[in-house]
Amino acid sequence: MDFQNFSKLAKVARGEIPAEMVFRGGKVVNVFTGEIIETSVAVTNGTIVGIGDQYVGETEIDLAGKYLCPGFIDGHIHLESTMVTPAELVEQAVKCGTTTYIVDPHEAANVSGADGIDYILHETENVPANVFVMMPSCVPSLPFEDNGCIFDAAEMKNYINNPRVLGLGEVMDYVGTVTAAPMMVEKLALFDGMPKDGHAPGLSGNELNAYVLAGITNDHECSNFDEVMEKRRLGMHIHIREGSAARNLEPIVRGILQTKQDISGFSFCTDDKHIEDIHTEGHIDHCIRKAIACGMQPVDAIRMATIHTAEHYHLHHRLGAIAPGLQADFVALDDLETVAVSRVFHKGVDVSSFHAQPKLPMDSPLRQTVHSLPVQPEQLNLSVGESCAVIRVIPNEIITGHKTAKLPQENGLFAADSTYSKIAVVERHHNTGKVGVGAVSGFNIRGGAIASTVAHDSHNLSVIGDNDADMLLAIEHLRDIGGGYTLVENGKILHTVPLPIMGLMSDAGFDTVQAELSAMIAKAHEMGVPEGVSPLTLLSFLALPVIPALRITPRGLFDVEQMKFIGE
Amino acid sequence: MDFQNFSKLAKVARGEIPAEMVFRGGKVVNVFTGEIIETSVAVTNGTIVGIGDQYVGETEIDLAGKYLCPGFIDGHIHLESTMVTPAELVEQAVKCGTTTYIVDPHEAANVSGADGIDYILHETENVPANVFVMMPSCVPSLPFEDNGCIFDAAEMKNYINNPRVLGLGEVMDYVGTVTAAPMMVEKLALFDGMPKDGHAPGLSGNELNAYVLAGITNDHECSNFDEVMEKRRLGMHIHIREGSAARNLEPIVRGILQTKQDISGFSFCTDDKHIEDIHTEGHIDHCIRKAIACGMQPVDAIRMATIHTAEHYHLHHRLGAIAPGLQADFVALDDLETVAVSRVFHKGVDVSSFHAQPKLPMDSPLRQTVHSLPVQPEQLNLSVGESCAVIRVIPNEIITGHKTAKLPQENGLFAADSTYSKIAVVERHHNTGKVGVGAVSGFNIRGGAIASTVAHDSHNLSVIGDNDADMLLAIEHLRDIGGGYTLVENGKILHTVPLPIMGLMSDAGFDTVQAELSAMIAKAHEMGVPEGVSPLTLLSFLALPVIPALRITPRGLFDVEQMKFIGE
Repeated sequence: MDFQNFSKLAKVARGEIPAEMVFRGGKVVNVFTGEIIETSVAVTNGTIVGIGDQYVGETEIDLAGKYLCPGFIDGHIHLESTMVTPAELVEQAVKCGTTTYIVDPHEAANVSGADGIDYILHETENVPANVFVMMPSCVPSLPFEDNGCIFDAAEMKNYINNPRVLGLGEVMDYVGTVTAAPMMVEKLALFDGMPKDGHAPGLSGNELNAYVLAGITNDHECSNFDEVMEKRRLGMHIHIREGSAARNLEPIVRGILQTKQDISGFSFCTDDKHIEDIHTEGHIDHCIRKAIACGMQPVDAIRMATIHTAEHYHLHHRLGAIAPGLQADFVALDDLETVAVSRVFHKGVDVSSFHAQPKLPMDSPLRQTVHSLPVQPEQLNLSVGESCAVIRVIPNEIITGHKTAKLPQENGLFAADSTYSKIAVVERHHNTGKVGVGAVSGFNIRGGAIASTVAHDSHNLSVIGDNDADMLLAIEHLRDIGGGYTLVENGKILHTVPLPIMGLMSDAGFDTVQAELSAMIAKAHEMGVPEGVSPLTLLSFLALPVIPALRITPRGLFDVEQMKFIGE
Repeated sequence: MDFQNFSKLAKVARGEIPAEMVFRGGKVVNVFTGEIIETSVAVTNGTIVGIGDQYVGETEIDLAGKYLCPGFIDGHIHLESTMVTPAELVEQAVKCGTTTYIVDPHEAANVSGADGIDYILHETENVPANVFVMMPSCVPSLPFEDNGCIFDAAEMKNYINNPRVLGLGEVMDYVGTVTAAPMMVEKLALFDGMPKDGHAPGLSGNELNAYVLAGITNDHECSNFDEVMEKRRLGMHIHIREGSAARNLEPIVRGILQTKQDISGFSFCTDDKHIEDIHTEGHIDHCIRKAIACGMQPVDAIRMATIHTAEHYHLHHRLGAIAPGLQADFVALDDLETVAVSRVFHKGVDVSSFHAQPKLPMDSPLRQTVHSLPVQPEQLNLSVGESCAVIRVIPNEIITGHKTAKLPQENGLFAADSTYSKIAVVERHHNTGKVGVGAVSGFNIRGGAIASTVAHDSHNLSVIGDNDADMLLAIEHLRDIGGGYTLVENGKILHTVPLPIMGLMSDAGFDTVQAELSAMIAKAHEMGVPEGVSPLTLLSFLALPVIPALRITPRGLFDVEQMKFIGE
């Protein structure tokens, strides 16, 4: 509450002076009582001042026939994953009703450390949305990772009094956490009593108890309802994730409904969602729609998109509901069942048509982040025996399988084909020359390669293909342009999306990015990548050594369950 | 979380070393999922470390056949109202399963200011319970009140970093709040973003909007379900009050059940409850029992007594559930429906038989707080005309009616009888000699008088009777002994409960206090006070000028709804 202006606001609330604006005639969704009540909402100085038809406004906004909800909240998002600038994400997602983001800028931190975090904070300062930041807790994600920067507790201390910093970002290093590794404990203790995001796919039993003991307050990695219930029983808040690659909403919402679970411990997040998916199907509004399609009451789904998230992050005295003293962030819907977003208001102002202006200067060091030596052909060789570890792609999941198979070979070297693709990860931050090579099943690309400098969390240069020549060409092209995605077929570069900002984001504008991405994705499927496998997203996760079961890094194949490299 | 010892606790959680103790075989009430699951709870260093039968303890506590709940929380209590020392309240209430108190020490503050608050904090430092303090926001309750001390924002600043201070205590001065009186705004701003207790009986419409706008987060004054719903719609958390005088549980719980309200916005409190009522019927366990009797599921009632309160006061990372990382505060029940408390554990230790040691030194200035001039007989005279304002007592309520009546009279002076009692309030803090006199209907005492130095919130000396001689005797006796309750019949002092600590509390021990109180109350009813009217409690509230409708102060009768003295 802005107590400087409280005297004026209180006069408005008491009806002594008119409100700046009154939102009139809407069917207001009350996330406290679950009611939908046709009434008016008085707003002054961007703050909700009173609820009731008795209020009079200097400006009156007619919402007759519309439903009025609190602005939607994404409970956990890496906004770098949209591939556009933060402001452009806001431009797109505001059309979906999103007014608040709980952001973990750990992609930026992995590439550029505190400079990357400062970029995210700075770029989101003046957008028509509330962007809060969780301090990335695992940069690098594991001690041996080849990422760009280390972000430790000492650096976090510089941010702890920033009112936009809410707590500790997703704690992926569960081993360091449950074994009380001093560097991890230092970070946990720094945020004592504040929200601490979890990241614990499949963690169970004693280790889950130890993880919760450490004060981790939520998890967004549940992919089935049994896992949800084990975590809820220990008090964890569950972010139901529906992103580009990981789509966990349906089994969880169905579980909630079947067991009549109290929903107050649940909210929605996207985690990683590409801008074209947000453009096509929506953002948090899509989660609400999908939950309703599963049978959830619309108001309950809206609660999970608003007040529950606000409460979990201790923001409920500012956001998450339509009540006096809260910020006037509203979504007007034409229809409740289809969540058809009509208008969106941030601090009382209609921001539906906000237009982002990319503004990163051309000489920013964040534009110069691909630092890798040229890759020699023999660096892509992989010696194979009778039986080899293979990363098995699972459609619609970001977890992978770990299988062993006899790989196709020539002269004792892996010869990729349409069943077994070759993957390579090239260190790209410090010119170390490291290249890890492995085999992947289920990606099925034929006659070419796709490469990316987006490769969670270390964001090295990853490339997957069925022949070394195209893979080498793709690597070289991304080195030349300073990062992005590229697709090569039979010696030709067909599509490229430059991502000059840290090798993660484009400021060329959403339309450009979206057109080229769509063409690239369509082409990748044409080249054999199955439906159900998102070619770019999947590639971006194959180098992430904190998600089960088998991953590839510049140092080779990594068994996540055993926490060791294959062959160690 | 105690991160100093986290390494050891994490080893226990992971099963590498045994727990200090394991609570084995209980049916554990899970307030997150609503389940009741037979399992074991491992505890080390007073902290819950893990849940599951796999844990082994150096000590094992057999809970076979029992239900295990989190310790109960009283969401709002003036512990001075028990009339015993804080430690003795804990001694009694721990037998009822209460392990946490959210205390507003505004009685102590009204008499003795910061010294009174320090006494409460100090006395509750080493009891087997968690006692948190809200900063009394309205001391005095109204600017013109004749109380002992002023407690302002400047004094509150000394407490704001005390980890046991959670926010601002009940904001009774709703007029000052909604009109943005600078002294009130200063206090509100000081606790921005922290819980702020409300006190808004019957507040509605524009004024309620303005009150919520000020950041008031809860209310415990609702006496009917319509009032509850109006406040819930604006986001207020509702403490359902069941104390000695105000008993609001039944209509509210029935309303919740009838409308199938989401219960997460509700919890229990006692506000003011005498120790003998706690001894007789229980404390928060009584609220749970009564809610179950109304038809509420036991687990839902337990949620309202535990996790909901913890969440509202931002304590849920420490208290309110049985989950790793939380304090090991448990209640073992023999039976869930009857909430039969068997054993109570605080930080893992059985504290069911805790015995308080009164310890306020005899020379403490808190024992010398009755400073009033002798009252002359003519000071009790009340001139009356055809029609007079009368305080109408309403059984089982602390709100009063405001009626006008023709009073019995002799020589133009009010002559009390068994229908119309006389009440007088004598200023007792600063020897000002002020005495206010009025008439009361519905108290019906015959042949004597009752007097008290407990008289919310200013705690002046109040006396009610049907004849001046007995009233004067009662006043004199309380002046002599430094405060307490006394009952006089036909010129004889029959029963006295000395309350030497600030005129509010006794350290003579519960048994002594309880025996004398019971005798006094029984005698009062024998003398005509109707069943449904708690003679001492009711008398203690008749001087509180912030609760509707008509009250009496040392300056005369006060119309709460008009906020002015009668005759002004």
